[in-house]
Amino acid sequence: MGQSGEGHIVKQFDADLMQLHGRVLEMGGLVSDQLSRALKTLDDQDVDAARAVIERDRDVNVLELRTDEDIAKILARRQPVARDLRLVLAVSKAVTDLERIGDEAIKIARMTIEIYGREASILPGNELLDDLELMGHEAQHVLRGALEAFDTMDVDRAMSTLGMQDRVEKTYKAALRRLVTYVMDDSRNVGHMIQIALVAKALERIADHARNVSQYVVYCVQGTDIRHASVHMAQSGR
Amino acid sequence: MGQSGEGHIVKQFDADLMQLHGRVLEMGGLVSDQLSRALKTLDDQDVDAARAVIERDRDVNVLELRTDEDIAKILARRQPVARDLRLVLAVSKAVTDLERIGDEAIKIARMTIEIYGREASILPGNELLDDLELMGHEAQHVLRGALEAFDTMDVDRAMSTLGMQDRVEKTYKAALRRLVTYVMDDSRNVGHMIQIALVAKALERIADHARNVSQYVVYCVQGTDIRHASVHMAQSGR
Repeated sequence: MGQSGEGHIVKQFDADLMQLHGRVLEMGGLVSDQLSRALKTLDDQDVDAARAVIERDRDVNVLELRTDEDIAKILARRQPVARDLRLVLAVSKAVTDLERIGDEAIKIARMTIEIYGREASILPGNELLDDLELMGHEAQHVLRGALEAFDTMDVDRAMSTLGMQDRVEKTYKAALRRLVTYVMDDSRNVGHMIQIALVAKALERIADHARNVSQYVVYCVQGTDIRHASVHMAQSGR
Repeated sequence: MGQSGEGHIVKQFDADLMQLHGRVLEMGGLVSDQLSRALKTLDDQDVDAARAVIERDRDVNVLELRTDEDIAKILARRQPVARDLRLVLAVSKAVTDLERIGDEAIKIARMTIEIYGREASILPGNELLDDLELMGHEAQHVLRGALEAFDTMDVDRAMSTLGMQDRVEKTYKAALRRLVTYVMDDSRNVGHMIQIALVAKALERIADHARNVSQYVVYCVQGTDIRHASVHMAQSGR
C-alpha cells in the first residue's frame, strides 16, 4: 500500500478516535442536563417535567449502546496501541459511568412524582429538601469539572475534580444526620425520610461516577491507573 | 514464521483468554465470599469480623487493577477479533461490576460496626433486619447464577438469572415499606432506618450488578447487547 493509502487510514483512525472522544462529551452533556432538569422538577414540584426526564433516559441508553458497538468495531478493525488504546478503554469505562449517572438522575425525577404526584399526600418540610439542592449543585460541579478535563485531556483539571468529591461526601453525611433530627422533631416526615436518603445517596453516587471519569483522563494521558490509589502505594511499598 | 511458531502464539493466546476468563471467576468468588461474610457479621453482631471484611476489599481492588492491566496488554499484543474480542470486552465490563459488588458488600460490614460497635447504642428491632437477611440470600443467589453462567458461558443459565433480579427488586420495595411502619410503631428505631434502607439498597445494587454479568455472557456468546432491551425493541421497531 502506498504512502497516501496509509495516510488515509491514519486519518480515518484519528476521525474514529475523535468521534469516540466526542461521544463521551455528548453523553456527558446529556446526563448533566438530565441531572439539572431532575433537580429542577423537585424545586418546581413539576410532575410532568419529571416524567419527561424519565422518558429521556432512553436517549442516554441509546448513546451507551452505540458507543460500545463503535468501540468493538474500532478495536477489531484498527487495533490501536499505546495512548490510542488507552483512549478507547477510557471511553469504554466512561460511558458506563455516564449511563449510571443518567440512572441516578431519573431517581430524583421519580421522587418528584412520588411526593407531588398524588393528591392529599403529606409534603416534606422544606429543610429536608435544602440539603438535596446543595448536594445537587456540588455533584453537578464535579461532573462538569470531569467533563471539561475529558474534553481537553487536562490531567491537572482532572486531579482538581478528585478533591471536589470529598466535599460532596461531607455534605452527604451531614444531610443524613440532619434528616434523622428532622424526623425526630416531626414524625409526619417519616414517610419521606427513606426517599430523601436514597436521593441523597444518588447524588453522592453521581459525584463518585464523575470522579471516575476524571481518573480515566489521568489513565489516558499518563498511562497510570489511579483508582484505588492506596493499593498502588501499598504495592510499591512492598 | 513457521507453522509451529504460529501454533505457539495461538496457544499462548488461548492461555491468555482462559486466564482472563478465570480472573472473573476468581474475583466473583471473592466478592461472593465477601457478601456472605458481611451478612454473617450482621447476624453474629461481630464487629471484628466486619473490620476484616472491610480490610479484605483491598484484594478485590488489586484483582480489578491487574485484570484491567492484562486486558490492555492482550488488546495491544494479540489484537483479538470476533468472539475473542467480545470475551475481552465482557471481562472488562464484568470486573467493574464485581468490584462494585465488593464495595456494596463492605457497606453491610460498615453497618455492623455502626450498630454494634459502640457501647450503649440502641439496637434495631429484629424484624428490621429480617428483610436484609432475605434480600442477602436472594442477591447471593443471583450472583452465583451469574458466575455459573459466566463459568460455562451458558446463555440459558444467564437468561434465567435475569428474571431472579425481579424478585430481589420486589423484596427490596416491600422491605422499604415495612421499614416505615416499624419506625412509626417504635420511633426509637428512627436512627437505624436510613442505615438499613441504604443497606437494602446496597443488596439491590448487588443483584443488579450480578445481572449485568449475566448480560455480558449473552453478549460474549451471541454478540447481542441485551442491556436496555426495550431500547433495542424500540430501535428495531422504527
